[in-house]
Amino acid sequence: MQEVAVLGVGMTQFGELWDKSLRQLFTDAALAAIADAGVDHIDSMYVGAMSPGLFVGQEHIAALMADYLGMPGISATHVESACASGGIAVRQGIFEIASGASEIVLASGVEKMNDGADATYALATAADQEYEAFHGVTFPGLYAMIARAHMHQYKTTREQLAEVAVKNHEHGLKNPNAQFRMKINRDTVINATKVAEPLTLLDCSPLTDGAAAVILTTVDRAKKSGKPYAVIRASAQATDYMALHNRKNLASIPSVTKAAQAAYKQAGIAPDKLDVVEVHDCFTIAELVVTEELNLFERGKSGAAVLDGLTRYDGRIPVNTSGGLKSKGHPVGATGVAQIIEIVEQLRGSAGERQIKGAHIGLAQNMGGSGGSSVIHILKGE
Amino acid sequence: MQEVAVLGVGMTQFGELWDKSLRQLFTDAALAAIADAGVDHIDSMYVGAMSPGLFVGQEHIAALMADYLGMPGISATHVESACASGGIAVRQGIFEIASGASEIVLASGVEKMNDGADATYALATAADQEYEAFHGVTFPGLYAMIARAHMHQYKTTREQLAEVAVKNHEHGLKNPNAQFRMKINRDTVINATKVAEPLTLLDCSPLTDGAAAVILTTVDRAKKSGKPYAVIRASAQATDYMALHNRKNLASIPSVTKAAQAAYKQAGIAPDKLDVVEVHDCFTIAELVVTEELNLFERGKSGAAVLDGLTRYDGRIPVNTSGGLKSKGHPVGATGVAQIIEIVEQLRGSAGERQIKGAHIGLAQNMGGSGGSSVIHILKGE
Repeated sequence: MQEVAVLGVGMTQFGELWDKSLRQLFTDAALAAIADAGVDHIDSMYVGAMSPGLFVGQEHIAALMADYLGMPGISATHVESACASGGIAVRQGIFEIASGASEIVLASGVEKMNDGADATYALATAADQEYEAFHGVTFPGLYAMIARAHMHQYKTTREQLAEVAVKNHEHGLKNPNAQFRMKINRDTVINATKVAEPLTLLDCSPLTDGAAAVILTTVDRAKKSGKPYAVIRASAQATDYMALHNRKNLASIPSVTKAAQAAYKQAGIAPDKLDVVEVHDCFTIAELVVTEELNLFERGKSGAAVLDGLTRYDGRIPVNTSGGLKSKGHPVGATGVAQIIEIVEQLRGSAGERQIKGAHIGLAQNMGGSGGSSVIHILKGE
Repeated sequence: MQEVAVLGVGMTQFGELWDKSLRQLFTDAALAAIADAGVDHIDSMYVGAMSPGLFVGQEHIAALMADYLGMPGISATHVESACASGGIAVRQGIFEIASGASEIVLASGVEKMNDGADATYALATAADQEYEAFHGVTFPGLYAMIARAHMHQYKTTREQLAEVAVKNHEHGLKNPNAQFRMKINRDTVINATKVAEPLTLLDCSPLTDGAAAVILTTVDRAKKSGKPYAVIRASAQATDYMALHNRKNLASIPSVTKAAQAAYKQAGIAPDKLDVVEVHDCFTIAELVVTEELNLFERGKSGAAVLDGLTRYDGRIPVNTSGGLKSKGHPVGATGVAQIIEIVEQLRGSAGERQIKGAHIGLAQNMGGSGGSSVIHILKGE
């Protein structure tokens, strides 16, 4: 498959943005990415969004976004895989360029979650409704079960979970686009309002409005641009049983394992070659499980690793330098694209205060629901 | 771009299927397509659906459908472009194969519209909500305005509109999967309950449950299979201003014009080379306008053409031999795939009573909303 490059990136502030509509958020991010790439047109575009129908009563959003971007006419496609929609948008853009059909593609993600809709209901549609949500369980409950299983099997502690949030908030302090830029400590997390035992409010990512966009193009064109760019060395996607009750081991997320194995193989690298990683920490437990599936740590050792500071910006393998979903915010459709933006910023040395020195290879892992789907990209700086 | 073939097809009965769930409909169509193609696995899959979130309270449907198909693990992606979602699913499958990432891809569409949801509200989310639907206009109203403009500019008559429905119902009589298999006449259409002047109930496509799926693969693999197949000679997609008030001429649908020009160019053929055509007749007026945008008839002449029988199964250019959305039914996400299935059946000579003798090249035109998006495929029999 022909290699594809990320030439430009753009994102909005993440947060409760009551004065910005869905279309405005998208347009702001898209224009920023186009300007950053320095391209004079795009051939087509993808929009990742989980449920604009339920959140703001709008479907058919790709055509609408092309219209509001001032480009009615171009090919525009909306893709959805719950909270992995953004990563999938980038993946479909890669396919379109690699197929030879297009040369410059905008891949974006957007979600407007604060607009009066019942967000918990909307998010629960990412579970197997007939077997999970209709019976009353929502996502904090599903991830709480995963947390309990991990604690039971590996003696993972409440403190270790809390440290994920503490670390990501510390990282988020350095990200001007982050929703929650405040220092917290383990006690704050542990003593916060209980959401679903053992998870408290500060173990959970927030409801966020925001958008993110990247410009994808051929490596040839990226080279000729004279600008810094990142090459996509792997794009892998996998699914799993949607409902937790069908999975063999609640403390594992096989869609991530499968996508990770495929991605490492495509890129031809081992996990220890990674300089920086963004993972889908929708809940603190998710970051722990995912770092194990990515083979950054042995199974059951991720809790100790975070407590030892191995995943801090100054640790062995920095995880979620952006602040992660926890501190940066989680506009579900935009998250996967924002993760890739953080990796690109790190690889081209433009991550400001968050910069990891000499970062050369990075990985972004995006996940839908309780791991029913996952998409992983590995990027290399040029 | 590498050429891709359709090797197998499968679809469900279209209709009010109160005893079939979304996942069951998809699975029935997908298994039928896999059996028809005679493949022993699929590498990945696409699901086109407009709004499973609003219709049945379920998002993240591609992963869920892979799960229920008995294939948890494979890459599965949901795409949406309102009523053009099915055509887009096929298009994304083509990109994935042409990129070299996969060899066998299932492209499908499904919608469960009869399940108690407010279908008119759900469908209206395909319009520009802030400027159209929130003010009270729904799709029959939008297409009624297009009809009025066409009648005003080209002296198109009420009888000509009615004849589209009469012809498509006649075609649908021969399609065992069609929702409405009943003969109607022009008087029945004209005197039916008024929905939005000048459109009556029988000018409108119905609310339908159903699914459709095709197996896409490389032309090489299709050849080696020894089975009849169709080659995709063109895949083109375009958008337009979403809201009618932004368009220069209400009697035209520029997204179709643009996609058609690109498709004819890709395929290297003129419209008069087409043997059979499926168009998106969500309302009778849509078929008239679209056949003009496809250059099957001069602008303003499509009404006279249908009255003269030129688009009947025995006419110069048969349009909607399947019965079209009008008689076959319109499960919005499935429609684009079902159109391609009809063309494949015609090209391989397996269309039964509906068979157009010697059909060799066919076109399928799928459309979102009031033409905010359109996707066109041209296929050739082998």
